[in-house]
Amino acid sequence: MKSFPVPMIPELNQTVASAAVARQDRLTKPPGALGRLEELSIKLAAMTSELVPDLSRRAVLVCAGDHGVAAQGVSAYPQEVTAQMVLNFLAGGAAINVLARQMNAEVLVVDAGCMADFAEQPQLIACKIARGTKDITQEPAMTSQDAEAALTLGIEIAHQQHQRGIRLLAVGEMGIANTTSASAITAVLTGYPPREVTGRGTGVDDARLQHKIAIVEKAIRINRPDRNDGLDVLSRVGGLEIGVMAGVILGAASQRIPVVIDGFISTAAALIASTLSPKAVHYLLAGHRSVEPGHQKALAKLGLQPILDLDMRLGEGTGAVLAFGILDAAVKILAEMATFEEAGVSEE
Amino acid sequence: MKSFPVPMIPELNQTVASAAVARQDRLTKPPGALGRLEELSIKLAAMTSELVPDLSRRAVLVCAGDHGVAAQGVSAYPQEVTAQMVLNFLAGGAAINVLARQMNAEVLVVDAGCMADFAEQPQLIACKIARGTKDITQEPAMTSQDAEAALTLGIEIAHQQHQRGIRLLAVGEMGIANTTSASAITAVLTGYPPREVTGRGTGVDDARLQHKIAIVEKAIRINRPDRNDGLDVLSRVGGLEIGVMAGVILGAASQRIPVVIDGFISTAAALIASTLSPKAVHYLLAGHRSVEPGHQKALAKLGLQPILDLDMRLGEGTGAVLAFGILDAAVKILAEMATFEEAGVSEE
Repeated sequence: MKSFPVPMIPELNQTVASAAVARQDRLTKPPGALGRLEELSIKLAAMTSELVPDLSRRAVLVCAGDHGVAAQGVSAYPQEVTAQMVLNFLAGGAAINVLARQMNAEVLVVDAGCMADFAEQPQLIACKIARGTKDITQEPAMTSQDAEAALTLGIEIAHQQHQRGIRLLAVGEMGIANTTSASAITAVLTGYPPREVTGRGTGVDDARLQHKIAIVEKAIRINRPDRNDGLDVLSRVGGLEIGVMAGVILGAASQRIPVVIDGFISTAAALIASTLSPKAVHYLLAGHRSVEPGHQKALAKLGLQPILDLDMRLGEGTGAVLAFGILDAAVKILAEMATFEEAGVSEE
Repeated sequence: MKSFPVPMIPELNQTVASAAVARQDRLTKPPGALGRLEELSIKLAAMTSELVPDLSRRAVLVCAGDHGVAAQGVSAYPQEVTAQMVLNFLAGGAAINVLARQMNAEVLVVDAGCMADFAEQPQLIACKIARGTKDITQEPAMTSQDAEAALTLGIEIAHQQHQRGIRLLAVGEMGIANTTSASAITAVLTGYPPREVTGRGTGVDDARLQHKIAIVEKAIRINRPDRNDGLDVLSRVGGLEIGVMAGVILGAASQRIPVVIDGFISTAAALIASTLSPKAVHYLLAGHRSVEPGHQKALAKLGLQPILDLDMRLGEGTGAVLAFGILDAAVKILAEMATFEEAGVSEE
């Protein structure tokens, strides 16, 4: 097992967390009555080391990459849709753009490994590692050098965002056929058989779902990824955008930036990150529960409970960014509510 | 059974709903991939008769009233907390104020039947019907005249809000001991025994929960409410604030204003409204799933699925107003996303 140089990830700040718990109990409501809003305010305090963190500077990193396994007919859409959607993100017309505008979050698109090239522009982080992955039914997705490069790039991007003043991140993705890769990663790292963690992705029919399950089984059989080594799993059955997302998670955690993961694919990236540094999970929040059957199993493995459950399965970071509104509510409750003393309300 | 004059409630606009369905299927995402955001955009179009309704003028009506049954020791808090919290709402320090500010919603407090009096002020709708209800373990909560007055007031308030330009409403409440009343209403109108729909409210312990269940059973035994007559149920085991909320639901539905209900108590009001006019349910959205065990059963009876599920149990309209952010997202997706043609993205 190769050792990848993971940045140092600090402990959660339990002192600030305790202060948040104490303040929640003085606010004018029965203790615990705001449920997960209370829990999230306490978690955010522990992550950021601030009782009331300023999360106003925020971004979603939409990481894009192509997958050689698309040639096996595992998606309802042709491979060129990856690049077409990147252009849609840059033009502001995709679902993630709409939700990010609502939540006052920047959309930054990372070309981690698309087949196509894109013109330079401010919202595009161009760091193409390769033109897509190889077909994982035939060979490893990428070299171990490229897997390391993807992680390193993700870590650097997180550090750059921290330097720009970003204090809350979401990770999302685009990549035709990347639920196939995510299913393989999830099967290997959770121990569930491929048929229990492979779903319909963009919406394939029953016959294509059976085919997709067989493809995932074959990818694992051919490549034999080492479940104890996230880097090996990434290079054998992963994706370039998945590697960058895993790196972003590690880099953000090292800077105390909370990262909201999105659906099945970004959660597969989180599984990889957690094998490289289990402490990275302390800085993760699960934005929503996806319809993909493997998502809940991956979240359970990470010990994360989704914030929203709205039958979504789009990716792009949509479920993560939508959850920003709930995080804002959690922080505002702690910051703005009156205490029993301030309001002159009798206690139990 | 007395006939209460329910205002005429229009049919949902299926033509506009079909236009919303058609537009969702042209947007740059796999069909259905935004799950409940798509469903909610279609429902809001059907309710308002507008493909992209302008929901920017919005309010939460926090209806407050006291309950005579508080004398039976069913709450963790003393009765004076009802009035203290009304003052907290008016001062802007309660949870509902924080969340309403985040969601750009007005907080209007309705004194439907508090023991205390309050000074006149812009955010207070003073329409005290009585100084609290009677103790429902001894006699009916209110006269049938007062029950009619509560419903009529609610209908009038909804009409006033419509005339002011409000196009989205949430209903919430405050009233020490009102989960006891809501449990009795829910038991009668869903058919479940009291022990299955009675919970811990503000947070009573096991012994007090058993006592509370016995109180609910006694209230139903003594008063024998007619499950086919919402007005009778309201007058025998209801609350003044619950009656006003039921009236608001009827009045808003008659004006095509979507109403987001909150937790267990506002849902009990919705059960009453639905017995008076089943069509009122077409204009309801369930903001969240409360921790109270009777809430899910009441929602199921109404055929409503909660938008959020965050272990909240505060009331005040907090879960309803928090869901405004999801409704905004639903409308913005339909309004702002690019179509496949506009973005030049290939389809299946």
